[in-house]
Amino acid sequence: MSKSNKLKIFNDPIYGFIRIPNPLVFDLIAHPYFQRLRRISQMGLSYLVYPGAHHTRFHHALGCVHLMQKSVQVLRFKGVVISEEEEQGLLCAILLHDIGHGPFSHAMEHSIVEGVSHEYISRKFMQELNTLFNGSLTVALSIFTGNHPKKFLNQLVSSQLDVDRLDYLKRDSFYTGVAEGNTNSDRLITMLNVVDGELVVEEKGIYSVEKFLMARRFMYWQAYLHKTGVVAEQLLISILKRARFLISEGVALKASTSLLYFLSTAVDKENFDSKILDVFAKLDDVDILSALKEWEYSNDFVLSELCKMIVNRRLLHIKIKKEPISQKRFNEKFQEIKKDYRLNDDETGYFVFKGRLENKAYDRYEQNINILKKNGKIVDVATLSDHLNLNALSKTVTKYYICYPKDAV
Amino acid sequence: MSKSNKLKIFNDPIYGFIRIPNPLVFDLIAHPYFQRLRRISQMGLSYLVYPGAHHTRFHHALGCVHLMQKSVQVLRFKGVVISEEEEQGLLCAILLHDIGHGPFSHAMEHSIVEGVSHEYISRKFMQELNTLFNGSLTVALSIFTGNHPKKFLNQLVSSQLDVDRLDYLKRDSFYTGVAEGNTNSDRLITMLNVVDGELVVEEKGIYSVEKFLMARRFMYWQAYLHKTGVVAEQLLISILKRARFLISEGVALKASTSLLYFLSTAVDKENFDSKILDVFAKLDDVDILSALKEWEYSNDFVLSELCKMIVNRRLLHIKIKKEPISQKRFNEKFQEIKKDYRLNDDETGYFVFKGRLENKAYDRYEQNINILKKNGKIVDVATLSDHLNLNALSKTVTKYYICYPKDAV
Amino acid sequence: MSKSNKLKIFNDPIYGFIRIPNPLVFDLIAHPYFQRLRRISQMGLSYLVYPGAHHTRFHHALGCVHLMQKSVQVLRFKGVVISEEEEQGLLCAILLHDIGHGPFSHAMEHSIVEGVSHEYISRKFMQELNTLFNGSLTVALSIFTGNHPKKFLNQLVSSQLDVDRLDYLKRDSFYTGVAEGNTNSDRLITMLNVVDGELVVEEKGIYSVEKFLMARRFMYWQAYLHKTGVVAEQLLISILKRARFLISEGVALKASTSLLYFLSTAVDKENFDSKILDVFAKLDDVDILSALKEWEYSNDFVLSELCKMIVNRRLLHIKIKKEPISQKRFNEKFQEIKKDYRLNDDETGYFVFKGRLENKAYDRYEQNINILKKNGKIVDVATLSDHLNLNALSKTVTKYYICYPKDAV
Amino acid sequence: MSKSNKLKIFNDPIYGFIRIPNPLVFDLIAHPYFQRLRRISQMGLSYLVYPGAHHTRFHHALGCVHLMQKSVQVLRFKGVVISEEEEQGLLCAILLHDIGHGPFSHAMEHSIVEGVSHEYISRKFMQELNTLFNGSLTVALSIFTGNHPKKFLNQLVSSQLDVDRLDYLKRDSFYTGVAEGNTNSDRLITMLNVVDGELVVEEKGIYSVEKFLMARRFMYWQAYLHKTGVVAEQLLISILKRARFLISEGVALKASTSLLYFLSTAVDKENFDSKILDVFAKLDDVDILSALKEWEYSNDFVLSELCKMIVNRRLLHIKIKKEPISQKRFNEKFQEIKKDYRLNDDETGYFVFKGRLENKAYDRYEQNINILKKNGKIVDVATLSDHLNLNALSKTVTKYYICYPKDAV
Repeated sequence: MSKSNKLKIFNDPIYGFIRIPNPLVFDLIAHPYFQRLRRISQMGLSYLVYPGAHHTRFHHALGCVHLMQKSVQVLRFKGVVISEEEEQGLLCAILLHDIGHGPFSHAMEHSIVEGVSHEYISRKFMQELNTLFNGSLTVALSIFTGNHPKKFLNQLVSSQLDVDRLDYLKRDSFYTGVAEGNTNSDRLITMLNVVDGELVVEEKGIYSVEKFLMARRFMYWQAYLHKTGVVAEQLLISILKRARFLISEGVALKASTSLLYFLSTAVDKENFDSKILDVFAKLDDVDILSALKEWEYSNDFVLSELCKMIVNRRLLHIKIKKEPISQKRFNEKFQEIKKDYRLNDDETGYFVFKGRLENKAYDRYEQNINILKKNGKIVDVATLSDHLNLNALSKTVTKYYICYPKDAV
Repeated sequence: MSKSNKLKIFNDPIYGFIRIPNPLVFDLIAHPYFQRLRRISQMGLSYLVYPGAHHTRFHHALGCVHLMQKSVQVLRFKGVVISEEEEQGLLCAILLHDIGHGPFSHAMEHSIVEGVSHEYISRKFMQELNTLFNGSLTVALSIFTGNHPKKFLNQLVSSQLDVDRLDYLKRDSFYTGVAEGNTNSDRLITMLNVVDGELVVEEKGIYSVEKFLMARRFMYWQAYLHKTGVVAEQLLISILKRARFLISEGVALKASTSLLYFLSTAVDKENFDSKILDVFAKLDDVDILSALKEWEYSNDFVLSELCKMIVNRRLLHIKIKKEPISQKRFNEKFQEIKKDYRLNDDETGYFVFKGRLENKAYDRYEQNINILKKNGKIVDVATLSDHLNLNALSKTVTKYYICYPKDAV
Repeated sequence: MSKSNKLKIFNDPIYGFIRIPNPLVFDLIAHPYFQRLRRISQMGLSYLVYPGAHHTRFHHALGCVHLMQKSVQVLRFKGVVISEEEEQGLLCAILLHDIGHGPFSHAMEHSIVEGVSHEYISRKFMQELNTLFNGSLTVALSIFTGNHPKKFLNQLVSSQLDVDRLDYLKRDSFYTGVAEGNTNSDRLITMLNVVDGELVVEEKGIYSVEKFLMARRFMYWQAYLHKTGVVAEQLLISILKRARFLISEGVALKASTSLLYFLSTAVDKENFDSKILDVFAKLDDVDILSALKEWEYSNDFVLSELCKMIVNRRLLHIKIKKEPISQKRFNEKFQEIKKDYRLNDDETGYFVFKGRLENKAYDRYEQNINILKKNGKIVDVATLSDHLNLNALSKTVTKYYICYPKDAV
Repeated sequence: MSKSNKLKIFNDPIYGFIRIPNPLVFDLIAHPYFQRLRRISQMGLSYLVYPGAHHTRFHHALGCVHLMQKSVQVLRFKGVVISEEEEQGLLCAILLHDIGHGPFSHAMEHSIVEGVSHEYISRKFMQELNTLFNGSLTVALSIFTGNHPKKFLNQLVSSQLDVDRLDYLKRDSFYTGVAEGNTNSDRLITMLNVVDGELVVEEKGIYSVEKFLMARRFMYWQAYLHKTGVVAEQLLISILKRARFLISEGVALKASTSLLYFLSTAVDKENFDSKILDVFAKLDDVDILSALKEWEYSNDFVLSELCKMIVNRRLLHIKIKKEPISQKRFNEKFQEIKKDYRLNDDETGYFVFKGRLENKAYDRYEQNINILKKNGKIVDVATLSDHLNLNALSKTVTKYYICYPKDAV
């Protein structure tokens, strides 16, 4: 009988099976730091718009490992040299690239860990795990931080056409049911190559790249920046701010131990040490949602009202405009609600507010997508003349919104 | 311009779009009782086996409404009379058929609301909503309770081939990625008809019925009774029992207000009044998961260990056998762990236990699936002679299991 | 028992089931004129590029009927009045909209029925069938010819966002496996409405419209104008021209009776009478392919070589350029092959030739796609300011090609 | 720049992309013998039932190569030794396993190449190609003929759970739209292993094996033996018999050169030499279909009527029974038609005939599917006690049919 190597497998509605071919990768998955991602939703509160969007960062990370294996296979077939050690580095780097995300990450970064990015925390986690796993994540860390001398390894993990985006666009499109956001990640990977140490896409893949950028833009406006999702996220930011304020005033709020820690402590890059990392590692969607459910019954009118809005999905009204909201219009709404609700200015600001949304599908100045032409030349995808609309994609689109209670008199 | 009737739509990765054609149905969906189902996972802890299985009872209920609309359309096309009022009754009954499920329902029914079935609680919710909506759920209630004089209406909501099963098998198969459990609900619905007031399947649908029963059996053994899911569920039952015990001993446990209520109150059918219903309506997955996360740090060794097992997915070992576990083998394990862990008998019982699993794919004695033959006769699907294996499907399959810590010395 | 209305059903890998709800539609499908479409491939010789692309015009026409039913349902729901008679007209018009296609239609229109468009022949077929079915296609004819007073009916059958395109893009994308060409026809249909008698798309469907136009462009360059498909089609045109020439010279060629008829007769709009229609109705892919297979063994070098190229898929080499092919370069190739193959100029022209390809994804001057804004205004999709790239889509993209034998010395 | 190895790729609607990693495999695909499979439909006349079923043996063979690559990868991962040479042998053997199929193969084997199986002809083709490719198919031939000393290699190509079946069930299910026939080939392949030189399935794959057998049975009754397909196939057999008879009587029939050869020659295993193989290599669906289309206009009433039936899909009526058709009933129909149509007995036999259909989903006596239990033991899948219905699957199901004209008075 053949030696019984265990082939670790995860079911995936998208790829069928995800095979984990590497014992180190498997041990990382089993670690509580990574298991925590099972309780962090990939799309935050978007399930209030798309009821299927309950997929997790855990599953996304596994999907990335799957696509990374495919990428390595394709590149090696084309003669690109990738050592066993570099392959393991790639797999670990992509597995852990999002491990620093907190629950409802975008809201968190504006309220709880202000000024500490999830990339920064991911790096902290990887360093901690590197110590635990006796330095076996050193290559992964150099790739993750963009410092590996083979630049294409870094680009596979983070660039405008990285494995991360290839999975999340496909996955978010799948679970939301927004079919237009689907990307043909298999085709794109098949078109990858390496020239002068940098990742390129072969010319015949040009329409697929364009399609990928369009899909990304589509997902931004249709899903990530969907107006209902935007208002829910703003409410969550407000709730956490209000809770932090009340706690600072000495009000006792019921919440999980780790959430209370972050609501009563000022965390920044400087003081983000191992101890704080450990508390952060206990924080997930459950902490936030259970707090919302308790705070529905808070004595503070603002906190209680805002929590009910999310829990029962009775959100504020939101209007999206191409022009900035006029100060006059805003003031009218503000005064109207202030009077109706009998609040002071500070409190009213939780119910009537405005802001703006921005998206740029492709940023050629940040880091571009290079096309390998049949004649061997390398050009930026946006300069190929018959794909004119990429210039359009490179422009920033800005929209403006105002939120206020629906039932305002 | 045409009058702008709002067509309420939900995205669904499975059916594409679910259209909600009825204002009453829409208002029910918007009610907090129903919104709560967004926070109740359809498959409980199965996500520990199938990482995609985070779909909710909310989405399942919407999917059922979709299939019910299709069924009504097909039956009417075949000349079956269904009035507008009956159609609304069907849609409301199927929308609300699972509203009485608590979080991790199977575990709950063995620990928190012992002896009060989810069907019983669903009925309570429907009665409450009927009052709220001025009696407009009266027809739905008569269908849900199986009392409508048109028997096929009741059967569409609850029978061996009801719309509920048609959706959940397809949905659970989809989200777990267990492709073998997929059912062709569209084909089955197309084959439905009504004879003498009862639901039948036309003869040419016989292979599809058989396939449906096979898929159901497949999902039982591969998903619902998957050994890892079984052990996780047993652990959850144990955790809730232990917590109830500790509370009865006067130990203070941190948990949500509603969970604490149920852990310190004996609830049964008799005392399940409106007030209890209201507390129940606040209970969802978040309450359970946040408790597990807090109790990891409990001083009680048993409670703390069990919680860690689920939170970090380091579960007990489970062995499945076709024969009952011998008492001798069980005692050996029990004593071994008792000694290792230095526990008393009661405590040891949380770590070493046995049980059994049962499944019958088709129960012709309970309520059968009738086939309408081309010659107009009606026969039970299991008696059609060249589909012999249905007799096999009608037999109960029993399996036995024992659980104990993996790292037992 | 309910009255047993027969629900005619076709299986479809894309939509699951296509239900044919109308006896007239069913009778038209059963007619030999329509059955002939089973033997006419939707994508001609594209199967030489995409081996899955063997789907037929028969299946596409059924798919259109399916989408048309959905469209009628959505519009009626929104209060648009469509009578039973108009509905039947729509279904028949869309069923028969492509019935005038010959085998390998684009090649045919350049060689066999020069100057007689497939729309013209479709109309002829519909008139013939109208006589046969006692005038029951009169409404369908007025819709098909764009003469129905309710303009939106005409637009559902033929416009820049008609049901025809919604099906063929989805279907061609599906069978080729070119996932990027997939369109969310279900979503687009859900967004349709009628204002002032014209078809519009509601504003929230704008990204889907844009995505649809992108997908269409994608399919043009990736599938319909794929270089291998282009060269195969040009070869087929050359073969038919050569055969016609040989026949005019008195050479006996083996071929089906109907193909021989068209190769030895000059057909134009003027003389296209019932008799010719009847011969045309016998012509399908089989006639062309069987001729190619026989002509492989012709004594004429040109005919034989060209036929072998298609039958054995050993095609000419093709180069695609953004600039016109220089006359100098062309002449060099031409002389080289002429000498190698020992041919005269006429004959050489069958092996070395050039041409150009054009595509415009959206033509707002021909007939535009109108968007219904939330404020009730109607605007052309291309003018909405943050969808800038639609302007790019409106530009014509031209490419140039040259073909010659691969093994040229 | 990396060396530009060409990665040959085929689009596949099912697997996304099929990569051809081996130059020999690619050269075999390019050979006219293999290209011919582009013109041989996998499911014969089934497109008259399932309009999507136009997929070809060409695509199926490529799909098999894809699954074989996966199988080799999984087995190697589990420590099974497969040399480069053996891998190439597997890929070539599976690529060519069906190359000996003629058009509408089942009909052909009863009319044109009576007594010469397609396996026999496949072997002939492989031997011819082996000579052409300088012996590089020697290993493939030993695998294809079941003579390779490593038995599991033979089993991967031909057994009750071979790669052939894994692809064709999935593919036929996909293109017909009969979703119930879909099989999870990916999961099954993942469960493969080798013990004592033989292919086994690991125990946890048992439900998938069972599901696979059920799906196969489903496809037999729902697709391969669908009554409309059966009657069409019988008509085709009759047509070819009639044509052969007419030719033997000296009647001139228009048909392709190769078809005429086979209709006027008695071919058997003994005289099937290289010359006949070469004529056979020119025969495909086009030859048969073009003959049918010409013979519609034959002077022979029988031939002409039968051809019209297929071309216009106006088939004979067929009744399927579980009991043999009584001779009395048959005689009545026979005499009725004989009189109506004014035919002699021989001629009448073309319009009224009977026969039987058989299927056994699993034949454990022929060659069984072995399960590797967790305790290391090997058992036949049918003996595992809680999968009782496999015994049912092992029984032969027989049905009987009678065909006659629909409009019989």
